[in-house]
Amino acid sequence: MSEQHDPTDLKTAHALADAARVAIAPYFRTALDVDNKLATGFDPVTAADRASEQAMRTVLAELAPSDGILGEEFGSSNGKGDRRWVLDPIDGTRAFIAGLPTWTVLIALEVAGRPRLGLIDQPYIGERFAGWPGGASFSRAGEIRDLRASRCDRLDRAIMASTDPNLFAGAELAAFEAVRARARLCRFGFDAYAYAMLASGGIDLVVESGLQIYDVQALIPLVTGAGGVISNWTGGDPSRGGQVVAAATPALLEQALEHLAAAAV
Amino acid sequence: MSEQHDPTDLKTAHALADAARVAIAPYFRTALDVDNKLATGFDPVTAADRASEQAMRTVLAELAPSDGILGEEFGSSNGKGDRRWVLDPIDGTRAFIAGLPTWTVLIALEVAGRPRLGLIDQPYIGERFAGWPGGASFSRAGEIRDLRASRCDRLDRAIMASTDPNLFAGAELAAFEAVRARARLCRFGFDAYAYAMLASGGIDLVVESGLQIYDVQALIPLVTGAGGVISNWTGGDPSRGGQVVAAATPALLEQALEHLAAAAV
Repeated sequence: MSEQHDPTDLKTAHALADAARVAIAPYFRTALDVDNKLATGFDPVTAADRASEQAMRTVLAELAPSDGILGEEFGSSNGKGDRRWVLDPIDGTRAFIAGLPTWTVLIALEVAGRPRLGLIDQPYIGERFAGWPGGASFSRAGEIRDLRASRCDRLDRAIMASTDPNLFAGAELAAFEAVRARARLCRFGFDAYAYAMLASGGIDLVVESGLQIYDVQALIPLVTGAGGVISNWTGGDPSRGGQVVAAATPALLEQALEHLAAAAV
Repeated sequence: MSEQHDPTDLKTAHALADAARVAIAPYFRTALDVDNKLATGFDPVTAADRASEQAMRTVLAELAPSDGILGEEFGSSNGKGDRRWVLDPIDGTRAFIAGLPTWTVLIALEVAGRPRLGLIDQPYIGERFAGWPGGASFSRAGEIRDLRASRCDRLDRAIMASTDPNLFAGAELAAFEAVRARARLCRFGFDAYAYAMLASGGIDLVVESGLQIYDVQALIPLVTGAGGVISNWTGGDPSRGGQVVAAATPALLEQALEHLAAAAV
């Protein structure tokens, strides 16, 4: 496996994910009775989100003090050059509060406005998915292996995923449904974890809308490093978020875009 | 924690789950490229399903040879009395083929037509949820703790789950949507795992339709053992499958049934 590209940056990304794991652990599935939590004013998702991002910022202050940071919780700070770490301390907060172990921590390094490295980490299951130019890897409990997207090139054979059909409305919903109706099957409910499965070869196509910059940046090097493709609904640069589609192959992406283009903004 | 009820039966149920874990492991996330698998005629879900049920039937032949068995893959065999093990060797086959770690193995002991013990096992994450009259437990990697459903008694505060909105049509879809629109949030995509989260306190309400006997039997002792309630959409016995609703509290169940009753069959 080639992790030759920017080994220092990749090491920093792993250190960030390690720190987030430790910070979040005390909050997941503890005191799951949300009504009770609301009554006492304690919101475990917000607490975990903030602890996770704070822990990652502490690591960056140590390992990469001159880089900029964009985080979901604590905003943006400029660095001295064109490098910026983009952090989503907990992606999938609805899964988190429901106790579902499919939320993730998203870590990206953006260089000159383009995401170069991406990590998706699921601390409870202990899975980490990392991507960089030319490669992608999976690791869990000492096991490490290369990731490779599937070879699926036909929409009618594709296993598709999206977080929630109710996130679409109007023309977007119609376009999404046109793709879904033609796919082999569609699975809802997995946020960024669906892109990790695309990089792993299990899911062939992901269609979403309304993504933020910190939702999407980590996914791009992972999907492309595993041999997949990712764009916005016009086929252009997805790195600013919004409408996003990821596919195992260019041919599959093209078939999805045929239906999505009508609702592309 | 009280596992005093029928300790032999509970031990048998754990032995079944252990056997299924070993049988399924070689098939999960191996050769995920489904197109390739279709081309070679190898279907890993069917192979894993059969290996899992066969392994459990071997254990039952040893530990409970006079009990009947109903399994998804190999049908029904009568026992000498009124006891029957009801097995779903892999619930959530669509998650399984997508590489998503939220499929489960479902094991129930039915006595005189009523489910008495229920286990939901997720081998990859290593989680096991067990329920019996008066109690329910979670175990993972040596950790074991009691399970308790939430105290949520208001639909507008409820975290709801269902496997897929596209499993409903017509009056059923309208009734489901009436509940979903009133809930605090709804999460799709988790099959039986959603009931394990209800027993754990993370999810407050699950609404589904089209369940088979082997899909539902294991859920009933788990949900009720954790203090929750489960019925069909008329409020009656859910143990034959079909339309099922599970809730953390009787008050919440009643509010869901107000909307579901119109489509109850």
